[in-house]
Amino acid sequence: MAMTGVLRPGHAQIRVLNLEESIKFYRDVMGLIETGRDDQGRVYFKCWDEQDHSSYIIREAPQAGVDFIGFRVLDEATLESLESDLNAYGVETRRLPAGDLLETGERVRFTLPSGHEFELFATKTKVGNGMPLTNPGPWCADAEKGISPIRFDHALLYGPNIADVKKIFVDVLGFFMVERVIAEDNTTEVGIWLSCSHKVHDIAFVEHPEPGKLHHCSFLMESWERVLRGGDIMSMNKVEVDIGPTRHGITRGCTIYAWDPSGNRFETFMGGYHPYPDYECLTWTMDNFGQGLDYPQRKLHESFLTIVS
Amino acid sequence: MAMTGVLRPGHAQIRVLNLEESIKFYRDVMGLIETGRDDQGRVYFKCWDEQDHSSYIIREAPQAGVDFIGFRVLDEATLESLESDLNAYGVETRRLPAGDLLETGERVRFTLPSGHEFELFATKTKVGNGMPLTNPGPWCADAEKGISPIRFDHALLYGPNIADVKKIFVDVLGFFMVERVIAEDNTTEVGIWLSCSHKVHDIAFVEHPEPGKLHHCSFLMESWERVLRGGDIMSMNKVEVDIGPTRHGITRGCTIYAWDPSGNRFETFMGGYHPYPDYECLTWTMDNFGQGLDYPQRKLHESFLTIVS
Amino acid sequence: MAMTGVLRPGHAQIRVLNLEESIKFYRDVMGLIETGRDDQGRVYFKCWDEQDHSSYIIREAPQAGVDFIGFRVLDEATLESLESDLNAYGVETRRLPAGDLLETGERVRFTLPSGHEFELFATKTKVGNGMPLTNPGPWCADAEKGISPIRFDHALLYGPNIADVKKIFVDVLGFFMVERVIAEDNTTEVGIWLSCSHKVHDIAFVEHPEPGKLHHCSFLMESWERVLRGGDIMSMNKVEVDIGPTRHGITRGCTIYAWDPSGNRFETFMGGYHPYPDYECLTWTMDNFGQGLDYPQRKLHESFLTIVS
Amino acid sequence: MAMTGVLRPGHAQIRVLNLEESIKFYRDVMGLIETGRDDQGRVYFKCWDEQDHSSYIIREAPQAGVDFIGFRVLDEATLESLESDLNAYGVETRRLPAGDLLETGERVRFTLPSGHEFELFATKTKVGNGMPLTNPGPWCADAEKGISPIRFDHALLYGPNIADVKKIFVDVLGFFMVERVIAEDNTTEVGIWLSCSHKVHDIAFVEHPEPGKLHHCSFLMESWERVLRGGDIMSMNKVEVDIGPTRHGITRGCTIYAWDPSGNRFETFMGGYHPYPDYECLTWTMDNFGQGLDYPQRKLHESFLTIVS
Repeated sequence: MAMTGVLRPGHAQIRVLNLEESIKFYRDVMGLIETGRDDQGRVYFKCWDEQDHSSYIIREAPQAGVDFIGFRVLDEATLESLESDLNAYGVETRRLPAGDLLETGERVRFTLPSGHEFELFATKTKVGNGMPLTNPGPWCADAEKGISPIRFDHALLYGPNIADVKKIFVDVLGFFMVERVIAEDNTTEVGIWLSCSHKVHDIAFVEHPEPGKLHHCSFLMESWERVLRGGDIMSMNKVEVDIGPTRHGITRGCTIYAWDPSGNRFETFMGGYHPYPDYECLTWTMDNFGQGLDYPQRKLHESFLTIVS
Repeated sequence: MAMTGVLRPGHAQIRVLNLEESIKFYRDVMGLIETGRDDQGRVYFKCWDEQDHSSYIIREAPQAGVDFIGFRVLDEATLESLESDLNAYGVETRRLPAGDLLETGERVRFTLPSGHEFELFATKTKVGNGMPLTNPGPWCADAEKGISPIRFDHALLYGPNIADVKKIFVDVLGFFMVERVIAEDNTTEVGIWLSCSHKVHDIAFVEHPEPGKLHHCSFLMESWERVLRGGDIMSMNKVEVDIGPTRHGITRGCTIYAWDPSGNRFETFMGGYHPYPDYECLTWTMDNFGQGLDYPQRKLHESFLTIVS
Repeated sequence: MAMTGVLRPGHAQIRVLNLEESIKFYRDVMGLIETGRDDQGRVYFKCWDEQDHSSYIIREAPQAGVDFIGFRVLDEATLESLESDLNAYGVETRRLPAGDLLETGERVRFTLPSGHEFELFATKTKVGNGMPLTNPGPWCADAEKGISPIRFDHALLYGPNIADVKKIFVDVLGFFMVERVIAEDNTTEVGIWLSCSHKVHDIAFVEHPEPGKLHHCSFLMESWERVLRGGDIMSMNKVEVDIGPTRHGITRGCTIYAWDPSGNRFETFMGGYHPYPDYECLTWTMDNFGQGLDYPQRKLHESFLTIVS
Repeated sequence: MAMTGVLRPGHAQIRVLNLEESIKFYRDVMGLIETGRDDQGRVYFKCWDEQDHSSYIIREAPQAGVDFIGFRVLDEATLESLESDLNAYGVETRRLPAGDLLETGERVRFTLPSGHEFELFATKTKVGNGMPLTNPGPWCADAEKGISPIRFDHALLYGPNIADVKKIFVDVLGFFMVERVIAEDNTTEVGIWLSCSHKVHDIAFVEHPEPGKLHHCSFLMESWERVLRGGDIMSMNKVEVDIGPTRHGITRGCTIYAWDPSGNRFETFMGGYHPYPDYECLTWTMDNFGQGLDYPQRKLHESFLTIVS
């Protein structure tokens, strides 16, 4: 968590084209646990090892994509303080009422210069990870249903003005830069990986003319062997894979990217390293971006670079 | 890192009986990288993927054990502020001058109620992890020399008054409790695992009558396969193993414990989960402590529970 | 398979003290697939990736242990030829009728000088591994139920006269010696690992005064990670573990040993190397047997060396 | 090994465009051990865990490709008997003298209907795997130099008349069919995977108009994690990767394919299952060949299907 009190990615709300098909996909293939449905027709999921009520929410819509990403902060006082910092910085915020999202408190919502809706919240009901708080086992049956990632880990968003986005995350919210890709001019940052913890990314952005686009939501796996198992399950269920299994040079993460039935890309990955705010940001240059993207193959995969939802 | 600005375990200074033998052990068997020697005869090491100058320092002495553990904080202002908080809480501190430890700034030292010397520091030269800051690979040759852990991860210390120790870490330094072992009375905490990050432990304490004792310093490995490889290397080099490879119920960590040539126990481990300050502390009871200690075997290993240095 | 036409370990029949408890254990904890019961009250199991009807058969009896081990040979002509070779060598054989074991043809039974009942058979119904013969997946749901080993791999038997046992396996049945442990006299073989394939063992014997004893039946796992998962499942089900997870020096296998509810030891292991009949037999000496038994710990575990069923 | 006495793939001789560059590649990047050079300018390599003098031989030539593949048989009597069986079947053979290949006995050479030179031999000096025959460790330093596969495992060859090739391997040499790909007519075998052991392949052929072509030589890795490490090393050394890391549906093998500096494709893989001669051959149909080739991605990679040397 950041010293500002921003803890972690808390939830993403994703638009899907067909709700029933998507529920089946996220529950049976991805192996998320359904934790609720609300009167707006939204369906709530969590990963098996998450404690909070939900981290991934889907709603039916005519077009795929991301509605918003929310980060959990330490407590309501922190939320208020960050809201005030955002406003002082010139970011307009608005409050969404407690209960608008199931089992979730008030959220402070704002629009990023990249066109994405982003929010902070301090309260979400803990439902546990299926294991007792006393003498728990290391995993439970839920850990083997479907691809069964551990947690919703981060998202990569595409949109304009990421230099301004970066300022909000670094100067106001207390994130730090972990890695970046710079353009051929060796100066302009075209991709930024930001952490509010010692993860290699809690959120990332790529410069892109169209605002508010989703490249992928990412789910953490426990091992390289579990990434392979995930790929097997994708194949068994005719999930369309984009790239992988492979390793990124960027973040060192070991990964598969695929699409949900609506064309929202998701990632199942493991690995990376443990950066801290005192670490220098690592830089990837365009002449070596192939290695950054797909380390073994050193290839720029066209679909990966261009398709967003 | 904690919201107070405590970042991570920064260094441990360990007493060894024979310096030359210990250098060979830590360099050639453990695979740490020697980064310096000072005029007090101390030898400095770092793990291959650490950025800081050193994380593990040994000095020759008639008795094995730990001299002190130091945590890195964000910056000098944070150091000052934490010093002042400690003093306000009633903890007496003293400053060790910059340069007393090689490439390390001023340190704020204090004695824990458990009898351990503990310190905070804000400055230590970054020497890098052997890879460039631009277009780095995921690992380099150093990652395969000896057991080659990624980083110095945490320490488990034995001493009295851990209830008081806990207060300092939680109330002053901003750590949170991740797991604990309670005595047969189902109340008294006899073991506490504390985090200033989202690691399952940055430091841990076990109640023990004799003050200032070391149970183990722990080094992080990348995978369960690397833990096995480490065990192979221990055997090839006639290192005395205490327990493992196995998994702890406590923290879920997968581990081997062994002794350095002086009888200081060390751990090479991987795994665990990702707790945050809003998580409830997990509790282990004495009637199930065998599973907490050695999950597959559910056994209380006498040597593990009683031998310290 | 050996050039004589001996293919592989085909089945073991094991005595259990309580049939219902044992069925639950082997089906729900071990994750074997029950494939039948016969009018003698025997229950038949197979591992998920085996093609044959059954490989592990249990029957209720007042004392635990092994009734017999059977190896599959290529065809009925091979069976006849091996029977004739055994007889010519002086081994008395008898035929058990087809159908005595479910879905199994005639078996040629004989008693080894170690007091074990051993048999060869050529016919057992193929029931498949749960996947189609056309466009099969790499695994199916059965691969994740319980510990779920891939196959019954080998057995280690304790009894007298293993020098004579070795002659039958090597000179008549076409096995070759992969590894051996020699006594303090540096001559007498006290443990022998025999292969009829390029596995590190298809069967093994240890010299022991009492005839016909079982040290363990062994089940193959796919990876070191799956061995750990198996250990987790043992703990979750209060299975009594003997040693492991660890690696043997002997065979390089990575392993856990535990006991079924009746006190029959079993092994879940992975790894090893790929010996061929032209390889020289590897030798372990008593002064280094600790490393042979438990490579990381270099320890002689008393229970492992003395308890048999 | 087959019941005929054919043991295993013994050696491949490969043509490279630049000998010095290729020596550097196979020694420093692939991590093979150079074991000799002969007066024809050939350079001999072995994998670290192989016992025989050499398994991979390169010679400089204007065009890349494979000169011949040789399988080791049990002994000289077996060699003679197989030679006689081949001749009786109508395959013309010739003897190459002992010593023509370093440390190798007489070889029985013949031309397959696919245009490949194939040979059998019974004698090759054992040089060991760098570990003693008494109390050996599980691996040695050679196991970590470069990609460091365990052994030369198999080859996939492209050429015409594979129906006739199959007959020689199955009817004369005692191999059995493990898997096959059939054409759109659901009858014609266009790819065949053959085993003389319980490996998923000791050799494989794909129907192709041009005779004598090499698709790849394959090297066995110990784990999926080691396959990834191999991919990292390829990238660090700018090796051109074709596909992977991924899993094949065919054989279940987990793999990376890349090219040596001359354009000879090689594979580094792990996994698969354990077929025996009594198993039914698995069939892949053209309408699902994407899954057979790249299980997670279900894609037909053009380069993989068309480029040979």
